[in-house]
Amino acid sequence: MTDEARQQRTKVQQIADDLKAAIERGEDGFRPGERLPGENALASQYGVASLTARRALKLLSTEGLVESKKGAGARVLSVQPIRRRGIPRLASEQWGSGKSIWAADDHRAPDVDQISVQENTTPPEHIRNVLALASGEQACVRSRRYVMEGRPVMLAASYLPQELVAGSPIVQADTGPGGIYARLSDLGHAPTRFREEIRVRLPTSEEAARLSIPTDRAVIKLARTAFDAAGRAVEVNEMTLDTAAYVLDYEFDA
Amino acid sequence: MTDEARQQRTKVQQIADDLKAAIERGEDGFRPGERLPGENALASQYGVASLTARRALKLLSTEGLVESKKGAGARVLSVQPIRRRGIPRLASEQWGSGKSIWAADDHRAPDVDQISVQENTTPPEHIRNVLALASGEQACVRSRRYVMEGRPVMLAASYLPQELVAGSPIVQADTGPGGIYARLSDLGHAPTRFREEIRVRLPTSEEAARLSIPTDRAVIKLARTAFDAAGRAVEVNEMTLDTAAYVLDYEFDA
Repeated sequence: MTDEARQQRTKVQQIADDLKAAIERGEDGFRPGERLPGENALASQYGVASLTARRALKLLSTEGLVESKKGAGARVLSVQPIRRRGIPRLASEQWGSGKSIWAADDHRAPDVDQISVQENTTPPEHIRNVLALASGEQACVRSRRYVMEGRPVMLAASYLPQELVAGSPIVQADTGPGGIYARLSDLGHAPTRFREEIRVRLPTSEEAARLSIPTDRAVIKLARTAFDAAGRAVEVNEMTLDTAAYVLDYEFDA
Repeated sequence: MTDEARQQRTKVQQIADDLKAAIERGEDGFRPGERLPGENALASQYGVASLTARRALKLLSTEGLVESKKGAGARVLSVQPIRRRGIPRLASEQWGSGKSIWAADDHRAPDVDQISVQENTTPPEHIRNVLALASGEQACVRSRRYVMEGRPVMLAASYLPQELVAGSPIVQADTGPGGIYARLSDLGHAPTRFREEIRVRLPTSEEAARLSIPTDRAVIKLARTAFDAAGRAVEVNEMTLDTAAYVLDYEFDA
């Protein structure tokens, strides 16, 4: 990088840092729904080229803090992130009584707008390993997309051993009250323990397209494994979350 | 964006997707420590300009999947991410017996290479709220940087109510066996419940510099609040994690 490029980059970052701090503090003019200063105003305020100011605004929209509309400038995003409670929402009293596992999420539940169920598929290697599938054993995959107020927020793909779920309501689009955990319970494999593993990376082109996010905004990969009382992994749900849409929350006793 | 720019960007993304898939599958030539094809090789393989290939390689290094050295090309990162177990590591038997809370992390413990303790500070608004500090009440802040094999992986800033910890070993750099949770216990405020909140965003310039990561690689913000038996928030630890260095792991019963 040339010195000039480095200097310009530092300026971009400084303007972005200032704007983000103002949004975080909820300063006047930086509250949800309010319009940020335009690139010309920022350029003259910081004494930089308008391209530099535009790049700073672009950083904020990549991150999902502002919404940019052609000609209308950038507005601070007015949608609050979804609070996903990791532990209470999985407590057996939740799904045992037929409630959605989303019901614990601060009264806002994303809706499923796309669902597909595929039986007899060969899952990726890392899923096969966790499910301890022998060579030739197959899986049923339930793929869903979740939206909040029309905006895609999460993709989820649940993998279950094919022989375990064949012929059960789990292979239907609608699995009935309590969802797949209640149905696994009907089959004698009620989940008794969960593991959630969280990584962050950039999305694939396909993930970015399905979530309607820029390819340079990171996603959370959240893999949840459900174990039955015998310690068998009966489901792996691989979720892909828009990082701008979620706060993950885990509460537990010492 | 012009059509040409969009097309180039799609090509960049496609090459990056292919390389990432090969790394994920651990294909020959794409295992940890192995050298990726150079930009010229990729350019001729995909029939694109070498700038396009270079941008694809840049995406991988932004994400932290490869290490690029001047003249030596890009190698697949050989360091495995650190597994941070959220729940067992906080179990009271861990810190109660004087063990580090890091001991549960797959036998690899990051070291602290920077530590500073500041008393009588005014914490940011969101920390004040959680700690329920009245106006004028202050906090003690313990700031640390963690490194793994010489590489910075996490920043942490623990905020504790000043009046609670004044004069205790908590205001010393070395808090003694069991760390601050054992000392809070000595003070009659043993943590009995924890809450961990996870968000992902781009780093500030300062965070990126302290973690030695590019400013366009996302960080995990992990805020852990410790509550005593009376339900009082006695500590908020705001952590900033290099997303390339960590897998978070939560295990719990249904």
